[in-house]
Amino acid sequence: MSATRTWSPSGVVTLLTDFGEADTYVGVMKGVLCSRAPRLRQVVDLSHLVPPQNVRNASFHLAHAWRWFPEGTVHVAVVDPGVGTPRPILVARDRGHVFLAPDNGLLGPVLSPDAEVRALDLDLHGLPERSSTFHGRDVFVPTAAAFVEGADPLASGAPIADWRRDAFPDPVDEGGAWSGEVLCIDHFGNAITNLPASALAGDPEAWALVAGGDAYRVRRTYGAVERGEVLGLVDSYGLLELAVRDGSAARTVGLTEGAPMRLERHG
Amino acid sequence: MSATRTWSPSGVVTLLTDFGEADTYVGVMKGVLCSRAPRLRQVVDLSHLVPPQNVRNASFHLAHAWRWFPEGTVHVAVVDPGVGTPRPILVARDRGHVFLAPDNGLLGPVLSPDAEVRALDLDLHGLPERSSTFHGRDVFVPTAAAFVEGADPLASGAPIADWRRDAFPDPVDEGGAWSGEVLCIDHFGNAITNLPASALAGDPEAWALVAGGDAYRVRRTYGAVERGEVLGLVDSYGLLELAVRDGSAARTVGLTEGAPMRLERHG
Amino acid sequence: MSATRTWSPSGVVTLLTDFGEADTYVGVMKGVLCSRAPRLRQVVDLSHLVPPQNVRNASFHLAHAWRWFPEGTVHVAVVDPGVGTPRPILVARDRGHVFLAPDNGLLGPVLSPDAEVRALDLDLHGLPERSSTFHGRDVFVPTAAAFVEGADPLASGAPIADWRRDAFPDPVDEGGAWSGEVLCIDHFGNAITNLPASALAGDPEAWALVAGGDAYRVRRTYGAVERGEVLGLVDSYGLLELAVRDGSAARTVGLTEGAPMRLERHG
Repeated sequence: MSATRTWSPSGVVTLLTDFGEADTYVGVMKGVLCSRAPRLRQVVDLSHLVPPQNVRNASFHLAHAWRWFPEGTVHVAVVDPGVGTPRPILVARDRGHVFLAPDNGLLGPVLSPDAEVRALDLDLHGLPERSSTFHGRDVFVPTAAAFVEGADPLASGAPIADWRRDAFPDPVDEGGAWSGEVLCIDHFGNAITNLPASALAGDPEAWALVAGGDAYRVRRTYGAVERGEVLGLVDSYGLLELAVRDGSAARTVGLTEGAPMRLERHG
Repeated sequence: MSATRTWSPSGVVTLLTDFGEADTYVGVMKGVLCSRAPRLRQVVDLSHLVPPQNVRNASFHLAHAWRWFPEGTVHVAVVDPGVGTPRPILVARDRGHVFLAPDNGLLGPVLSPDAEVRALDLDLHGLPERSSTFHGRDVFVPTAAAFVEGADPLASGAPIADWRRDAFPDPVDEGGAWSGEVLCIDHFGNAITNLPASALAGDPEAWALVAGGDAYRVRRTYGAVERGEVLGLVDSYGLLELAVRDGSAARTVGLTEGAPMRLERHG
Repeated sequence: MSATRTWSPSGVVTLLTDFGEADTYVGVMKGVLCSRAPRLRQVVDLSHLVPPQNVRNASFHLAHAWRWFPEGTVHVAVVDPGVGTPRPILVARDRGHVFLAPDNGLLGPVLSPDAEVRALDLDLHGLPERSSTFHGRDVFVPTAAAFVEGADPLASGAPIADWRRDAFPDPVDEGGAWSGEVLCIDHFGNAITNLPASALAGDPEAWALVAGGDAYRVRRTYGAVERGEVLGLVDSYGLLELAVRDGSAARTVGLTEGAPMRLERHG
């Protein structure tokens, strides 16, 4: 289906890395984009503070962020412990967007079953001289620039069938309760879980999130509780999170990524 | 007066939040802007490191930053502890700029008496499905995008008279001396006060700032003192600050936001 | 030579400062750019986390980043402990790029012998009212905006001959071994040295980096060692670095900027 559609770039490129903000690695990637993509409209930083080599964290961010961009956006994700080894780089076209990432599981939770995936030919758009430590600059971004200028993503490499389809852990329906885990701790200390809002069956306040032996009622808004109180909420991605009004649930309850979390009937 | 002027957007949008830089919340807001505002020229981050829920800090930043942008700029400030409650969102047109912020006092120190203020109709430009936790994405930025595309800010809601006009504390003229307080500690550890340069009566070196029982002379530049020495200075916003050459006044003198500061005749 | 070429701005401006990301200083500089340079295409942050007043660190970043941008880019570097004193501001045109920085040594390791350097006339493009603490906003960026709009950088001040030509320390060829030092610790904890890849004479694995009394073999990629193991690598700038696979060499080996590092034959 989408193979027969022509590729219409939006001129928008997103960047997601674990490069941090102190060095000029991200700036240099943008320099290469500016040099090679005169039709570039906007470069948007999704985050450069992915914990070093934390592929799962990058997947979480990209899976929830990409859909808010216009069709024709190129999403570049470089969390790449295998840089310099012969690991493939994937190019995927999916739901009108293009994704570039190493084949290390990062795109597993991001792509749909309809995604068309290629193993990137590094020589096609990559810089002629390439380092073994910075493919973000030497391969990823020159390729993204080519896509912004109209090169066909599906012509950028051979089809690949056995790419790494890592997935987030599924929540378990235990009949009247669900068990899940914390996928991500955000800047506010909210603990975002893999438990979907649909598990609430339309009645949030009938449920509680259970963590560390304590149960916390699910509420509709922060305003339903006092300052400093712990509550469950549906977050902006449609996932249940444990939060503290004007505080940090991660610190208050003692939670990290991967911590177990159950959803049970209240009272 | 300005009600009769037509709205001419500059294509520039500024963002000021307490969302931090590790998550993709800010990137997602930019995605929505890119999706809905093809005439967007530049998105400028004022800061995303406002301390969580610190409305006063956000006011300080916006009050001093907005005037450096071109007329026709839309300033979006989302420090919003009341998200999900029925608190109004304000749209203000003032001195050729447009401001969008929750009605929680944030715009009090920013707007002039001539500002024209509306209570935003969330259904007008907001996304059809809205979360109760992320109005930055679902309401603020789609509305800003509409203004970039030419929608009239003053037609975006009903006039509102009783919005929260919080103000910074005024310095007190004690006749020959002034008492004030620290409004903001910046990245360098400079303690910026509410004492205006006009209090110096044109002769900086005749004065001293007094904090924690010690007096520090006001100087014209950092170069007037040795490395590590504490001095008073007129900062780039026209406010008196306590600073340390090549060091941090906040750490050296032990200052935080709200700390008292007096301006007295030197010696 | 380049004096006879006309100046063709790319519309790209880079910013490198020690202003941090919490305050609105950088945002305000972008506001002035947007106000005064309608032909601005992209503003790229190289870094704003240069350690306060660390001119050497800023030189390292700029020296390695500028070349990845298109010709016609204006690079603005404001690490400026002397702001408010009569220190000159330099404008340099070099290899098709333009550089703006205080005359404090910052541009020494950046410019080539062919650079044409001027002492900026502050009144030419600077704001009419200038603070003594924020020349980034009041002088640097208005001048950069004028260059983006086509003003000739070489006509922006008088030629200056005795600008500060600070240099990075040269590595010492000891005949069969080299002694050098750590120039920069990056976000991953990699210790980047002043030892060039050319010292390896084409055979990386014949060499070892020696620091703190221990020798670590040079490898071609991270993949050649186990997780947590220390190795030498050629970094993406063509310099030797000490690294740890999936870890921090600075922390593991105990290195800071300026630490000695030797390159010796392996075994």
